[in-house]
Amino acid sequence: MPIRILTQEDLIRSGCLDYSEALEVVEDAFVKYAKGDVIFPDKVSVVFNKESQNRINCLPAGIISENVYGMKWVSVYPENPKKFHKPNLSAVYLLSELTTGFPIAFMEGSMCSGMRTACVGALAAKYLAKKNSQKIGFIGAGEQAKAHFLALKQVLPKLRSCNVSSRTAESAEIFIKQMEQYHKDVSFANCKNDFESAVKDVDIIITAISGQEQILKADWIKKGCFYCHVAGLEDEFSVAKKANKIVCDNWEAVKHRTQTISQMYQKGMLKDSDIYADLHELVMGEKKGRENDDEFIYFNSVGMSYVDVALANWMYKKTVSKEQGTIIEMR
Amino acid sequence: MPIRILTQEDLIRSGCLDYSEALEVVEDAFVKYAKGDVIFPDKVSVVFNKESQNRINCLPAGIISENVYGMKWVSVYPENPKKFHKPNLSAVYLLSELTTGFPIAFMEGSMCSGMRTACVGALAAKYLAKKNSQKIGFIGAGEQAKAHFLALKQVLPKLRSCNVSSRTAESAEIFIKQMEQYHKDVSFANCKNDFESAVKDVDIIITAISGQEQILKADWIKKGCFYCHVAGLEDEFSVAKKANKIVCDNWEAVKHRTQTISQMYQKGMLKDSDIYADLHELVMGEKKGRENDDEFIYFNSVGMSYVDVALANWMYKKTVSKEQGTIIEMR
Repeated sequence: MPIRILTQEDLIRSGCLDYSEALEVVEDAFVKYAKGDVIFPDKVSVVFNKESQNRINCLPAGIISENVYGMKWVSVYPENPKKFHKPNLSAVYLLSELTTGFPIAFMEGSMCSGMRTACVGALAAKYLAKKNSQKIGFIGAGEQAKAHFLALKQVLPKLRSCNVSSRTAESAEIFIKQMEQYHKDVSFANCKNDFESAVKDVDIIITAISGQEQILKADWIKKGCFYCHVAGLEDEFSVAKKANKIVCDNWEAVKHRTQTISQMYQKGMLKDSDIYADLHELVMGEKKGRENDDEFIYFNSVGMSYVDVALANWMYKKTVSKEQGTIIEMR
Repeated sequence: MPIRILTQEDLIRSGCLDYSEALEVVEDAFVKYAKGDVIFPDKVSVVFNKESQNRINCLPAGIISENVYGMKWVSVYPENPKKFHKPNLSAVYLLSELTTGFPIAFMEGSMCSGMRTACVGALAAKYLAKKNSQKIGFIGAGEQAKAHFLALKQVLPKLRSCNVSSRTAESAEIFIKQMEQYHKDVSFANCKNDFESAVKDVDIIITAISGQEQILKADWIKKGCFYCHVAGLEDEFSVAKKANKIVCDNWEAVKHRTQTISQMYQKGMLKDSDIYADLHELVMGEKKGRENDDEFIYFNSVGMSYVDVALANWMYKKTVSKEQGTIIEMR
């Protein structure tokens, strides 16, 4: 029983940091979901500490036509950075093939997981942002913000200006230093902790911060904006109220979580009928995306495990073709 | 993020095939369960093919005082041997520590999983078999049968005679050849496919066959016998009807499965009140085990994931102290 063990280095060496290909895989995963080609059991979420919200989630999913079933195993420990100088998140993926049922790959997952989230946001932007969007503004400048920038630039190649704001000016600085290497046609501005100026005059807003502070105000948002909500509760309730369309990756999943619009639903401030569409309905052409340049559109995703497994399986196949990783005979 | 990758060889080299220690770990896991020290979410079971019953189960569990949370990922593909000359079962374990939430070990699991099942049967025998049991009879001679023999000999050291029956005389022959190396004080008899003679005059009966055939008859069972039902539907309904006590590892879990007594429950042939105890109640002294030498006692387990994780964690710690396995820096 050989299993391919894949480190993040193995994945990078195999060319898995390719956002253009990854976006195709992610879009295809939504098509497969819409066509009933995915296996999608409930996730298993265990919170070990109510106060710290330390948790490990197990997210199994399969894609029948790809002959693969697997899972993401992800830990979220918010206090890790402060207490141990370690990342708050860890993730690994396990994949099995469906002919014999044997596991085939065990891989580092923080890169894949981050790319998945960013690609889903970018896929939403493909259908919901103005095609000629030029200005983007970030609240939060961490790994998720960077991944979103890279993915969004694929679907919105005309992006020319990028404002970055963050509680610490330093992390915005790091964002800019790293991202300007990838896209030299974009001019970056470090807005430090002036969140308003970072997002006031942009076509795309991304909020990706840790912590639960309703920073983004409805007044800051201009007509025609696409807003991709990545974190938890980082926008005031009137933001979603102002939206012409609210789109989710999967509203049925979102509504039971703790995001801003989930909380609004739970408080009775938002009804099922206030949600315009789930992302796969746009991908399948069942509903229209953006219909004019004035709409303000709000997107919220919580992450679908079949997208994770589709992306991890794509990465696995890349490592096979590049002969990367360590193959271990388990028995 | 270093993860220890453990093959079956690594586990064997670290001394994990120690049934005596493993039994202590398994008994302790039931104590921990009774004391509320385990995290025990529902398993995720996906059947890919109704006809073949090909399936992959994901069984997460944690033990708080051991600072560990993990899961067993097990595939059961009944047609593998015939179609691909490969085992019908594969299993791997993933373990995370609960201080930072990071994964620490990824290990081959068929050995651990097999030892777990056998140790639970042996633990039941410790409380439910006659202390001076000398004769044991097997229906089925595969890996599970062998593991049960090794585990049972630990709790019933007076076993002197072992009858082995199987659909194929060859597998009984292999059973005997392998087992007589471990326990030279036992005399073995190959009963071939004469199931009745294998179990007619014994103190302990183990049925561990694949397939769904009600081979074991109530008439064959003598007074004072302990019967450990390992497989699915291998005994006629009147066996359980004849039992003075029926004990499970966890009746609430058993009753929703497809074992003999599960089917009897679903057909209305067995009520909740017909079940004498769950195993942890015997371990904790809340209920008496065997009370005299005449009782015929029926034991059925389906496997509790916290026992899996407890045993896997014990194995992991052994490999750490023996410096075995391959440590891979995942990122």
